[in-house]
Amino acid sequence: MDGHTLDLSLDGPELTARLVDFPSVSGQEKDLADAVEAALRPLPHLTVDRHGNNVVARTRLGRAERVVLAGHIDTVPIADNVPSRLDDDGVLWGCGTSDMKSGVAVQLRIAATVPEPNRDLTFVFYDNEEVAAQHNGLGHVAEAHPDWLEADFAVLLEPSDAQVEGGCQGTIRVHLRLEGERAHSARSWMGSNAIHAAAPVLARLAAYEPRRPVIDGLEYREGLNAVGIEGGVATNVIPDSCTVVVNYRYAPDLGPDEAEAHVREVFADCGVVEFTVDDHSGAAMPGLSHPAAKAFMEAVGGTAQPKFGWTDVSRFGALGVPAVNYGPGDALFAHKRDEHVAVDRITHCEERLRSWLTS
Amino acid sequence: MDGHTLDLSLDGPELTARLVDFPSVSGQEKDLADAVEAALRPLPHLTVDRHGNNVVARTRLGRAERVVLAGHIDTVPIADNVPSRLDDDGVLWGCGTSDMKSGVAVQLRIAATVPEPNRDLTFVFYDNEEVAAQHNGLGHVAEAHPDWLEADFAVLLEPSDAQVEGGCQGTIRVHLRLEGERAHSARSWMGSNAIHAAAPVLARLAAYEPRRPVIDGLEYREGLNAVGIEGGVATNVIPDSCTVVVNYRYAPDLGPDEAEAHVREVFADCGVVEFTVDDHSGAAMPGLSHPAAKAFMEAVGGTAQPKFGWTDVSRFGALGVPAVNYGPGDALFAHKRDEHVAVDRITHCEERLRSWLTS
Repeated sequence: MDGHTLDLSLDGPELTARLVDFPSVSGQEKDLADAVEAALRPLPHLTVDRHGNNVVARTRLGRAERVVLAGHIDTVPIADNVPSRLDDDGVLWGCGTSDMKSGVAVQLRIAATVPEPNRDLTFVFYDNEEVAAQHNGLGHVAEAHPDWLEADFAVLLEPSDAQVEGGCQGTIRVHLRLEGERAHSARSWMGSNAIHAAAPVLARLAAYEPRRPVIDGLEYREGLNAVGIEGGVATNVIPDSCTVVVNYRYAPDLGPDEAEAHVREVFADCGVVEFTVDDHSGAAMPGLSHPAAKAFMEAVGGTAQPKFGWTDVSRFGALGVPAVNYGPGDALFAHKRDEHVAVDRITHCEERLRSWLTS
Repeated sequence: MDGHTLDLSLDGPELTARLVDFPSVSGQEKDLADAVEAALRPLPHLTVDRHGNNVVARTRLGRAERVVLAGHIDTVPIADNVPSRLDDDGVLWGCGTSDMKSGVAVQLRIAATVPEPNRDLTFVFYDNEEVAAQHNGLGHVAEAHPDWLEADFAVLLEPSDAQVEGGCQGTIRVHLRLEGERAHSARSWMGSNAIHAAAPVLARLAAYEPRRPVIDGLEYREGLNAVGIEGGVATNVIPDSCTVVVNYRYAPDLGPDEAEAHVREVFADCGVVEFTVDDHSGAAMPGLSHPAAKAFMEAVGGTAQPKFGWTDVSRFGALGVPAVNYGPGDALFAHKRDEHVAVDRITHCEERLRSWLTS
């Protein structure tokens, strides 16, 4: 084995270590994408496609259902934590151990060792997840080749501590601008104070009662929050502009248009002169009532939890594919210098997925 | 006359032009202070004192009243507007024509030509008015030699378009900090939003009704305003801190302690965790009921107006000396490239002051 190949006969923890020792910081994934493609191409049960540094491998067995196993191959910048190190307690340390080369190792192990799954499988390995959304490889594939991602259900192997986290909440960020008229603060009656004009907006936020809808048995928790406020020209000037930046995290029973309409409605009579959507990423349904998902839950065990934060499962949601997060890493240690994963979690996840796909 | 002397036999407009052509940007007043001192020392009716680049000249005639005529000798930076230029319409153009070398010329003319005033006179020429308050020469004299400024009434010859502007309002700036607890905005119930916590502060400001007290016949107008607001950590974080910067402009019937107490009281039950006074300059009474002021008003004519903005008359207020603003310049053109003064205003102010001090 040279420095640029992957040996899929290694076990899950060994393969994770190998992947961690193969640096692939966002934007520098080409070598790893090449290695993934090279490792998958010889497998006769898979058709392999590539778009940029994104690799998609599919079985074509004519099964009644198709499921996706997806993971990103990039990491945040290395922080003196490569190469990986396995300690005596069975913990593997290093950049990407949790987020999410352990998940990628599980994908590769399933691809290599389950040639006749009970459901058709689509493996997606994509780049640039840890950077700005417009670079995201899963987004690029969804745009260029949506047919590659067609499926009944998707599992994203992001770190979830080997628990199922269903769907994800959407997130919309809006700039609400209030207007006034400048004046010297010694003659304030000559102007109109834009910061004071924000009082109804803050009152509305402070009084807002977020929804907690139950969807597919999961209780989501919404939130409508100011994440920024800015106003002021100089210490002796009545300010003519004040902007409140609001973030609405919404449950997957709302579509993007409904979510935006709700925010507009909340602040409809608050004197907002400009309503600007700065960022918007939709929610994803957990889809736990789907037969493939039910079988998945039975196989992996435990109780599914709602996913409150936004993840790439939303990109499946946008394609109409229900999705869950399920991976061996622990999100608490993602992006940290002391990032690590318990190797028994890697083995556990691999076994549970194999059980689901072969029973 | 060489380049470093002042000839006090020039008339007011000529002397103004001479002063404008004698550059004295803040921090570079020494030559002009030397010249002022040298011009005043030979006058037998005056005792001349100096502190830094501040010159104080006093009569000691044992009159029943003593009044101050004060002005700063510095200017803002020159903007291609020196030397001065007198146009055919009797307008003198140049840096400091309005703010306030025309006023200083009037002071010097009165000093030179009224050897036996009906009230004892104190002439104050000070430096560094156009820069940060801690450099202000009048403040330095008040601190080092308060006895030099003892008087019954003071006239500051700042540009007031030859109208009397009585006293000045005080100004206090306060930072009101609200506190919360950080959390990821996808799990907002884990934290507490400091921007939302500012809602009662803004509501209080929006509902505030400022006073309009009448003092010595002048109607002042207070104002309590947010001049800045800042909060936010990142677009996906519930912010743990929000600061509202408030500016209270208050009428001269309140002392500094009362003004601060009022601001504290207004926001007493708004959840403010830190109340920090950032800047505070007291008000000055107009003192128009004082005999010296009454005679002054009769001599200069017109109707006194309240001064809403803060000026150095406040420094006299702090010493217990009522004070007014009265000078030939027009404040609208101060600090501008096209700064100018109508020369008949210079003559008018000089005549009115001479009338007051000799009748």
